[in-house]
Amino acid sequence: MHNPFETDLDKNAANYVPLTPLSFLTRTAYVYPGHTAWIHGARRATYREFQQRCRALASALSQRGIGPGKTVAVMATNIPAHLEAHYGVAMAGGVLNSINTRLDAAAVAFILDHGEAQVVIIDRELAPVMKKALAEASVKPFVIDIDDPAAGDAAMIGSIEYEAFLQEGDPDFDWQMPADEWQAIALNYTSGTTGNPKGVVYHHRGAYLNAIGNAMSWGLSHNPVYLWTLPMFHCNGWCFPWTITAYGGTHVCLRKVDPVAIYESIADNEVTHFCGAPTVLNMLINAPAEAKARMRSGVKAMTAGAAPPAAIIQAMEDMGMSITHTYGLTETYGPSVVCSWHAEWDELDISERAALKARQGVRYPVLEGLQVMDPETMKPVPSDGETMGEIMFRGNVVMKGYLKNPSTTDKSLADGWFHSGDLGVVHPDGYVQIKDRSKDIIISGGENISTLEVEGVLYQHPDILEAAVVAKPDPHWGETPCAFVTLKPGATTTAEEIIEFTRGRLAKFKCPKHVVFSELPKTSTGKIQKFVLREQAQSV
Amino acid sequence: MHNPFETDLDKNAANYVPLTPLSFLTRTAYVYPGHTAWIHGARRATYREFQQRCRALASALSQRGIGPGKTVAVMATNIPAHLEAHYGVAMAGGVLNSINTRLDAAAVAFILDHGEAQVVIIDRELAPVMKKALAEASVKPFVIDIDDPAAGDAAMIGSIEYEAFLQEGDPDFDWQMPADEWQAIALNYTSGTTGNPKGVVYHHRGAYLNAIGNAMSWGLSHNPVYLWTLPMFHCNGWCFPWTITAYGGTHVCLRKVDPVAIYESIADNEVTHFCGAPTVLNMLINAPAEAKARMRSGVKAMTAGAAPPAAIIQAMEDMGMSITHTYGLTETYGPSVVCSWHAEWDELDISERAALKARQGVRYPVLEGLQVMDPETMKPVPSDGETMGEIMFRGNVVMKGYLKNPSTTDKSLADGWFHSGDLGVVHPDGYVQIKDRSKDIIISGGENISTLEVEGVLYQHPDILEAAVVAKPDPHWGETPCAFVTLKPGATTTAEEIIEFTRGRLAKFKCPKHVVFSELPKTSTGKIQKFVLREQAQSV
Repeated sequence: MHNPFETDLDKNAANYVPLTPLSFLTRTAYVYPGHTAWIHGARRATYREFQQRCRALASALSQRGIGPGKTVAVMATNIPAHLEAHYGVAMAGGVLNSINTRLDAAAVAFILDHGEAQVVIIDRELAPVMKKALAEASVKPFVIDIDDPAAGDAAMIGSIEYEAFLQEGDPDFDWQMPADEWQAIALNYTSGTTGNPKGVVYHHRGAYLNAIGNAMSWGLSHNPVYLWTLPMFHCNGWCFPWTITAYGGTHVCLRKVDPVAIYESIADNEVTHFCGAPTVLNMLINAPAEAKARMRSGVKAMTAGAAPPAAIIQAMEDMGMSITHTYGLTETYGPSVVCSWHAEWDELDISERAALKARQGVRYPVLEGLQVMDPETMKPVPSDGETMGEIMFRGNVVMKGYLKNPSTTDKSLADGWFHSGDLGVVHPDGYVQIKDRSKDIIISGGENISTLEVEGVLYQHPDILEAAVVAKPDPHWGETPCAFVTLKPGATTTAEEIIEFTRGRLAKFKCPKHVVFSELPKTSTGKIQKFVLREQAQSV
Repeated sequence: MHNPFETDLDKNAANYVPLTPLSFLTRTAYVYPGHTAWIHGARRATYREFQQRCRALASALSQRGIGPGKTVAVMATNIPAHLEAHYGVAMAGGVLNSINTRLDAAAVAFILDHGEAQVVIIDRELAPVMKKALAEASVKPFVIDIDDPAAGDAAMIGSIEYEAFLQEGDPDFDWQMPADEWQAIALNYTSGTTGNPKGVVYHHRGAYLNAIGNAMSWGLSHNPVYLWTLPMFHCNGWCFPWTITAYGGTHVCLRKVDPVAIYESIADNEVTHFCGAPTVLNMLINAPAEAKARMRSGVKAMTAGAAPPAAIIQAMEDMGMSITHTYGLTETYGPSVVCSWHAEWDELDISERAALKARQGVRYPVLEGLQVMDPETMKPVPSDGETMGEIMFRGNVVMKGYLKNPSTTDKSLADGWFHSGDLGVVHPDGYVQIKDRSKDIIISGGENISTLEVEGVLYQHPDILEAAVVAKPDPHWGETPCAFVTLKPGATTTAEEIIEFTRGRLAKFKCPKHVVFSELPKTSTGKIQKFVLREQAQSV
């Protein structure tokens, strides 16, 4: 067919370059070489220095054989070396595998072997668990210690310290752009509540796009100051190592999520943005008054992992902070859904606003499709806020797939959609709301009970700090709801009083039959580990 | 080679979707269906309506045979139909050719034939020139009139009126995404100061990326209100039909750049952003005081096409407006270079700030490379602010090439860079500044004279409103600078006085030898037509 627009108009080196977030660092270091790239306690680096350190890292890694398809595992808190690995590893052509810092040695060993780690970069504080993991693992990677001043005095286990390793590299290393934007940039293991964790593979194209998607969804402008409250190992810090750099921002490091340290850093470094699960926000709200006294107004928080309860939204607003609620999974580069706010909603009262903001929302502009569907028929559910289906994602910020796991990849990406395993509804205005994980839903007497709905009511109780509801096997009903709650400091109440409280607010079959007072077990990312509670519930 | 990251991890429908700005409209219509998409006088459309109109247009065009590789030419002012064509044509798979509204019939006829237009959509006001063009052209396109209420009463020339044509289409048309992001989305003819205009072809990928690049470079946030002072036919309105839609913004239409109408619209519609050449800003500054009285504070202007002089920056700031200076060419999707501002520059005085802001700057984050090079050796010039070279671009926001012109495409995109034809320098901080178009530079006694430098001095003269300098042939020197100036209303001065003024501020060989008082001929985009002046200068 005659089509002059497809004739003599091919791709060439002038008009086609693979998308990669590495390009953001190159630009920002060029435009703002003297601007502060990262702050870590008393240390800071300009963008000129940050880029040179990343290039030196890439150079040194190249000399150790890292290139396309080769894995560099990093297990570290939110410190500069971890941030630099987000650039240096990919500049060498390699794949960054950022490991959850709270895993035990067996899990780490599995990951090192499955990811075929050739280099390991380890935070001194975490050296003991890594030492055990390395003893168990089959791979024999080259190990680099990060001797961070605040990392304690555990014995170092590697062949070289990180700063010395950088000295091996060339700070002007002429690194090459990826040959293809589909090339892998990162490997992130899902927390895997059952069986072995799965290795989610990201490509340069997706990392580039979701880095921008964060900014578009949050309304980010020039030179933000971003506090690293969110673990960098979690979906590559939700792609924020790349987002903040693209916008010429400053990364403020933080070894540990501690409310006093957070308030101090916000005040001292004039922080403008941070991310965290609602549990982190809760911790900030419940911090000592003297810590909160220096709070700056206008700070923006992005939260995900659970819907922020009304009380948290209100308390944050009272401190002059605004919250953006996002949602995503490891398989979608972290958040790729946002509860896009409508200006007219500002007029509503707090309970209405909280109800709207509790919804996961709509796709990021860089995600191409978000649907709630019946997984059998792949038909969308009606937008009635009632009918549950599985939340499905489509687009360039959906993973390449699971490493060395084609059958699960195929199942997960079947029919042109990523099957999230999350159950949700679509409201009449098109906003998606999660009702539960497929595996968390309680089926009692044939009725579905959303544990999130029951938890939402428990969070309204004035004495409850945190709550989680799981299924408890029941000979008559099949399953019944069992609540685990943590009370606020000084609060006293009874299981009976709490159950009575829910009676006025929920259909009777949804009310907890049992209430257990305890600390809630959490993943490293602040998510409550319901599989642990489900086991405990069996013996309640 | 063993590379598990390239094994069983292929593209599929779940994780790969071609990039296209059409996706932005789908999302915004979904998220903000009731938000105002466009305002045109008393008319307005919500995003629901806007999307339905675009889909109806796509549907009706499909029924008329428009699909991939088929051209729809539009010649219109900044009215809703023109905006809708930016979506509807591409949703049908076709290529939008938005024609400069100030061209004469012969030029339009050339473009219609060269672009092989199959459909023409014509603003009633411009019907007379289009009628002549169609009589001259070989193609026989289907013609649609836009009977805009403010378009005057020229005879309509088409087969159907635009609104009736929309009625032929299905507002729920199930349009298809482009099969490939490299597919053509638009065709824009360069103004072509010599010879026939060249047809620059854009693809979906580039349009998507530069739409985002605008927002990143301008710090755009949610729901901007954008006034259409910039012609939509100019590089597809610098990609802003897509940018503003991506951010859920409101497009405020404007048939004609008139300062009183602009101030009224800014006040009435609470405009937050607009674009325009410095001549447009100048027009605003010199508007009657009563028009300026209702000016809102905080409005942001993006300017390109020439450096904004200090007086303009100062006057805009005094009215509470801030200016972002960008630069680009038709071949780079409009602006793809920005004078990225440094917060610390705010402390400088106005002349220093103006000198910094006069520079074209650095690449957009979505442009991959910007260099000033010796076009012979392709070696970058030193960053000394002195050595001139040709400004070169590389990246995904460089055109596919020129339509049906492989030799010029190859020359223009040779050696992996787009050769802009603009001459510039690189300052020690890496910012690029244009010194001249290759063809505008004056060579006098073997010395290069930047006409922009001479004009910059003329603009400092208190009586001069506008100035342009061109080469005048000289038997002794080869060429000498000849200045054309327009004085401010009521001002009187002499050629001698002006030449004397420049003597104190420029090397003697750079001072104009002749000064001519006249109106300056301009292109439709506000650029001064130096080729006209060069002809006039021969007989001065």
